Amino acid sequence: MNEVKETGRIEAFSDGVFAVGITLLVLDIKVPTLPLINPRISLIHELAVQWPVYAAFITSFLTILVMWINHHRIFGLIRRSDDGFLVLNGMLLLIVTVVPFSTSLVAAYIVSPGARTAVLVYAGTCEVLALCFNGLWRYASKDGRLLARDHDALVAHGITKSYRHGPLMYVIAFALGLVNAMAGIGMCLALAVFFTIPPAKHVAKHTSRTV
Amino acid sequence: MNEVKETGRIEAFSDGVFAVGITLLVLDIKVPTLPLINPRISLIHELAVQWPVYAAFITSFLTILVMWINHHRIFGLIRRSDDGFLVLNGMLLLIVTVVPFSTSLVAAYIVSPGARTAVLVYAGTCEVLALCFNGLWRYASKDGRLLARDHDALVAHGITKSYRHGPLMYVIAFALGLVNAMAGIGMCLALAVFFTIPPAKHVAKHTSRTV
Amino acid sequence: MNEVKETGRIEAFSDGVFAVGITLLVLDIKVPTLPLINPRISLIHELAVQWPVYAAFITSFLTILVMWINHHRIFGLIRRSDDGFLVLNGMLLLIVTVVPFSTSLVAAYIVSPGARTAVLVYAGTCEVLALCFNGLWRYASKDGRLLARDHDALVAHGITKSYRHGPLMYVIAFALGLVNAMAGIGMCLALAVFFTIPPAKHVAKHTSRTV
Amino acid sequence: MNEVKETGRIEAFSDGVFAVGITLLVLDIKVPTLPLINPRISLIHELAVQWPVYAAFITSFLTILVMWINHHRIFGLIRRSDDGFLVLNGMLLLIVTVVPFSTSLVAAYIVSPGARTAVLVYAGTCEVLALCFNGLWRYASKDGRLLARDHDALVAHGITKSYRHGPLMYVIAFALGLVNAMAGIGMCLALAVFFTIPPAKHVAKHTSRTV
Repeated sequence: MNEVKETGRIEAFSDGVFAVGITLLVLDIKVPTLPLINPRISLIHELAVQWPVYAAFITSFLTILVMWINHHRIFGLIRRSDDGFLVLNGMLLLIVTVVPFSTSLVAAYIVSPGARTAVLVYAGTCEVLALCFNGLWRYASKDGRLLARDHDALVAHGITKSYRHGPLMYVIAFALGLVNAMAGIGMCLALAVFFTIPPAKHVAKHTSRTV
Repeated sequence: MNEVKETGRIEAFSDGVFAVGITLLVLDIKVPTLPLINPRISLIHELAVQWPVYAAFITSFLTILVMWINHHRIFGLIRRSDDGFLVLNGMLLLIVTVVPFSTSLVAAYIVSPGARTAVLVYAGTCEVLALCFNGLWRYASKDGRLLARDHDALVAHGITKSYRHGPLMYVIAFALGLVNAMAGIGMCLALAVFFTIPPAKHVAKHTSRTV
Repeated sequence: MNEVKETGRIEAFSDGVFAVGITLLVLDIKVPTLPLINPRISLIHELAVQWPVYAAFITSFLTILVMWINHHRIFGLIRRSDDGFLVLNGMLLLIVTVVPFSTSLVAAYIVSPGARTAVLVYAGTCEVLALCFNGLWRYASKDGRLLARDHDALVAHGITKSYRHGPLMYVIAFALGLVNAMAGIGMCLALAVFFTIPPAKHVAKHTSRTV
Repeated sequence: MNEVKETGRIEAFSDGVFAVGITLLVLDIKVPTLPLINPRISLIHELAVQWPVYAAFITSFLTILVMWINHHRIFGLIRRSDDGFLVLNGMLLLIVTVVPFSTSLVAAYIVSPGARTAVLVYAGTCEVLALCFNGLWRYASKDGRLLARDHDALVAHGITKSYRHGPLMYVIAFALGLVNAMAGIGMCLALAVFFTIPPAKHVAKHTSRTV
């Protein structure tokens, strides 16, 4: 720990973007317009009819949360920075800010003829996000150049291994979406839930010290 | 204090979500549309007519503020983190971002037939928020596993005890809302004010050192 | 500096609210709707017609910026916190988030019959903001209870003295607004500019070390 | 490093403004309204038709990202602050928050008769941003007064030299926009990409240590 941590402000800026992006998601849940002549039941009905919005909100919230948890996890190993790293991190954040748009698109079109297009945009966004994440991590961890000098090589390797699955998974979700919109978005939701689950014990034991 | 504080970035991210969420509340206070042909009195009137919006804004602001103060208070005792803790904290933040929506709903429907539904959604949001808070704290404080090794057991116990009341209180507010919307939202407002009041002296004396 | 700084997270949360609030101001500057049949000159005209929006934006930005600079300045002297302080700081932040609304109101009504009402709301918001600021500072500085033990009493006294003027100034701006809306908002703008100017040299010399 | 870093909270506040500003950009990408009677192809078409919005979004995101990277870079050399510096930094942030508006303007008018006006506003915003940046840096670096006492004079001089180009470049973009809107915005996009590229090796070698 006598090695100076140089990435404090990158983390602060990234935290800000993640925090704003994740909080903006809720703006997509609209208050139904006032039904002046209907009885109470209609508000319940109008709230229930919005179910795709709630599902998209939860999917996106979990997606961004998982991305933040992973960002947090790899920055626990990273100590240094350079210009290329700043640019790659910026690309990652660009995609993070696009997630609320993709979410809105799915929420608006999931029960309409545009559902397939919307789901493909959503899965595509997740795919690019996963690719950016892999790129950022590989750039930082190659020969351990931006990592802490005393980092645990096994942990770093474990992260590399687990990240490899992300892009492939979302390609499958994309392909599923081509066939059936619901199946595609369902797989995106499942992936968000899956990636929220802590990694296997032997990895968790190591990373818990670096959180 | 020679124990390393590992939760800095979790707090930074959480602070961001709390800060954005609490600031977005004001977007619900709309500027009345231009009354081109009316005299000045109409603007005053149109502003006055919006009173449910102001009441909901203040209630929600206090609710999120109290949640932040409590988040701040328990993180004063917490030193470590793990994946389960990150996920529980994420669930808490998800509910925090939903508060502005529930607020808008109450503000829009409090003087309409949908008032009861809106109040139940609001009280339900607060209930889940209180449950998340209890869950987060119990997860962290169980056997003191994520707390500072030198934490004051009396303070931790005091927090556990005072948090126990939250979920019950909001269940009562929910039940009140079933009978009478105004009574339900009134109790939510009263609870927000109540929880803003500093805890009893003997607890405050201890916690003030950990703020 | 061997005295622990306990207010880090209060500052982080406050910074978040200030940052979001000051950034939301720009949402009030609307892009004119597409004039499909008009030549280029109309966009210039429509942008020029929005001058009250730009004036309100700059006034509010400066107002929040000045409040942040002052918040930053007094927290340079403050080392400790307690529950009452957290609540007072929360009240201050509540008013900070209301500034964008008051700004929108003025921007929408400054050239209409509702101008006087809008300006009174704006001046009133600034008045409450100035009062909250005085309250927060007096609470923290009374007998130096939350200040650094080695704080410069002269600097603290200088801050108390300069803050005294704020509430009175905005009462005058409010009174001016009763007589003439333009005069009232003009004084608010002048005050924002005035408070942006660094304090007199002998105070600046001391505070510059605590920024 | 035994010199105290006084600018932590200025960076935190600035990071907040940059993060919120850069995240708000995406709000400009609107979900197309539901085409209830059209087949799927129409959503693809409506998304494709929005291309100026995507181009403007990416341009602005890169512009703000580059500004943040530069802000981050110069604050790596800056250790002290004073009131004039706070005000100059505030002016810079004001312009940063205006970028989303200029972006929206370009996105809305790039394929209409108002294109030239919109592009001039955008290039003008970038020009003022570049001027503010130069002003902030020159204020801080003059005689090294706010810089770390052990700062590398060559690095500081390199920054001064590279910043000199910004204002001139955007004047050229402005002039280009007078002749041809597309050429003007194209140059702004090219500049954003250009400034994202890390500086020449001999500078990068030094700054990488201060990131």
